[in-house]
Amino acid sequence: MQESFSFFNIQEAAIRLAGSIVRTPLLESPMLNQVAGCRVLVKAESLQRTGAFKYRGALNKLLSLPKDIRQRGVVAFSSGNHGHALAAAASEVGCPVVIVLPKDAAAIKIENCRWWGAEIVLYDPETEDREEVGRRVAGPRNMLVVPPFDDYDIIAGQGTAGLELAEQLSERGIQPDVFIVPCSGGGLASGSTAAMRHTYPDLPCFFVEPAGLEKMAPSVREGTPQKRPAGSPTIMDGLSGPVAGARTSKILRECEAVGLSVSDDEVLDAMAVAFRYLKLVLEPAGAATLAAVLRRKADFEGKTVAVICSGGNVDPSVFMRALHAS
Amino acid sequence: MQESFSFFNIQEAAIRLAGSIVRTPLLESPMLNQVAGCRVLVKAESLQRTGAFKYRGALNKLLSLPKDIRQRGVVAFSSGNHGHALAAAASEVGCPVVIVLPKDAAAIKIENCRWWGAEIVLYDPETEDREEVGRRVAGPRNMLVVPPFDDYDIIAGQGTAGLELAEQLSERGIQPDVFIVPCSGGGLASGSTAAMRHTYPDLPCFFVEPAGLEKMAPSVREGTPQKRPAGSPTIMDGLSGPVAGARTSKILRECEAVGLSVSDDEVLDAMAVAFRYLKLVLEPAGAATLAAVLRRKADFEGKTVAVICSGGNVDPSVFMRALHAS
Repeated sequence: MQESFSFFNIQEAAIRLAGSIVRTPLLESPMLNQVAGCRVLVKAESLQRTGAFKYRGALNKLLSLPKDIRQRGVVAFSSGNHGHALAAAASEVGCPVVIVLPKDAAAIKIENCRWWGAEIVLYDPETEDREEVGRRVAGPRNMLVVPPFDDYDIIAGQGTAGLELAEQLSERGIQPDVFIVPCSGGGLASGSTAAMRHTYPDLPCFFVEPAGLEKMAPSVREGTPQKRPAGSPTIMDGLSGPVAGARTSKILRECEAVGLSVSDDEVLDAMAVAFRYLKLVLEPAGAATLAAVLRRKADFEGKTVAVICSGGNVDPSVFMRALHAS
Repeated sequence: MQESFSFFNIQEAAIRLAGSIVRTPLLESPMLNQVAGCRVLVKAESLQRTGAFKYRGALNKLLSLPKDIRQRGVVAFSSGNHGHALAAAASEVGCPVVIVLPKDAAAIKIENCRWWGAEIVLYDPETEDREEVGRRVAGPRNMLVVPPFDDYDIIAGQGTAGLELAEQLSERGIQPDVFIVPCSGGGLASGSTAAMRHTYPDLPCFFVEPAGLEKMAPSVREGTPQKRPAGSPTIMDGLSGPVAGARTSKILRECEAVGLSVSDDEVLDAMAVAFRYLKLVLEPAGAATLAAVLRRKADFEGKTVAVICSGGNVDPSVFMRALHAS
């Protein structure tokens, strides 16, 4: 088992994933720059396979497994992008996969997992414990549980988004002043921040969380992973997981990353801005970094700001809410 | 003056434009493939600068002009993507530009041109002749009128989209069975079809027009450029220009390209499909090729179909109509 993490893991992941993932474009709009008061470079992970960066980590995990473990198959607990991405990655490498979902999960999310050939197990969150349900299904088959973020292979896979971003900036001769990434458990945030800091050692790095539901900012501050505080629900479902990761928060702390917070309204506004100037469909979590820039959550004026917009899996009704509000 | 056209012109344009345009991604969704009943590869020109392929041709035109002509400046008659793209390209190369627009043009389109520093001249389409207005403004300054499509530098610039597409297919080892491009005056259609046929000499090529407003199909059939027939208005404003080009229709005829037609409802449905599976914001004209595939306008079953989705400049209200209808 690998017990430490370095930039080398991300480079290895990039080689492993080459040709199987989308090298998502780095987009810029002069009009958006004027609105933001700084130069904004957007890494559009919404255009990644399955509509979110999660596919990078899931596929890297499966490709990193010994053949016999892969053949027995994998399990995920997820009603969101992680389950969808793992189901798609398992289909790509041809391994069995079970996704354990609460029975009240959105029909579209269940369908997405099933579409890729995953075995779906529904449980009742009122009366059943999902870990126990997972063990019952996967235990006899000796299947491996793939965690959503706090795993070095997952972190390295998500980190390839940051590595590509650094390459794309360098190809264009652009020197970033700031890097901003969305953050829930911290897989994407830690991996891509590590990749960016390797290329730009003193780069100020920020991660963005839903206002009132911050868990990574206190984790980084205190040096131990914290739970999400009780608070109002958010439309940023991709950023509202229950807990920050131990490995991920450690990496972000080492990178001196700083937390920023955005509200639902700010994110809806950013989704409309991405629609208008970038022609991107972003989900609320995917627009959080752009919201942080547009609402000047730190001093970005006149700076060159590289951001990751992490996904585009949004219901039409939520997207229309963003367009209506604009 | 250049009086003939070859693949070499497109290659030259690609070299001229390198680094100044977005190499737009080629996207694929296995779920979309299943819905379409064929393998669909989408060249997302909606992610091009100014939100449409038009920037390629406009910038190539300006970069091809002798320095003295460029310094005197250029004029365009356009209330759509051509004017916006020429204004942006003129800003890039630092040359004066006048955009002549009907005074009832959408405010957003006027603002877009002005944003880039263009001089805006409004005329009354009821009482004034736009050519005369243009001559009055540009004549004394000896400015050059840049036509929207029937010009070999414009055609070559738009053709770089097809050249990139051929390169991207080849990089992935994909052999296309069919190529489909949207068509109004025919700049993009002729240029990119010529590029694709140079790489794949026997490739069946199709161009897509709004049903009931076909002008290129009869132009290609009869060998002379035809006017748009009188018909109901369409939401595909990017495909409803008054006339097909002479040069563009000749190139399409030489490439044995075949016309297909799609309705507004079919295009709205394709916009919703692009939102759901590709996370792309497409304008109606930009979704026309995808509509042709989804509605099986020719026999694409089981084939590998490469399409250009040409732009994403769409009002929120029209986009919401597409999402509502889905």
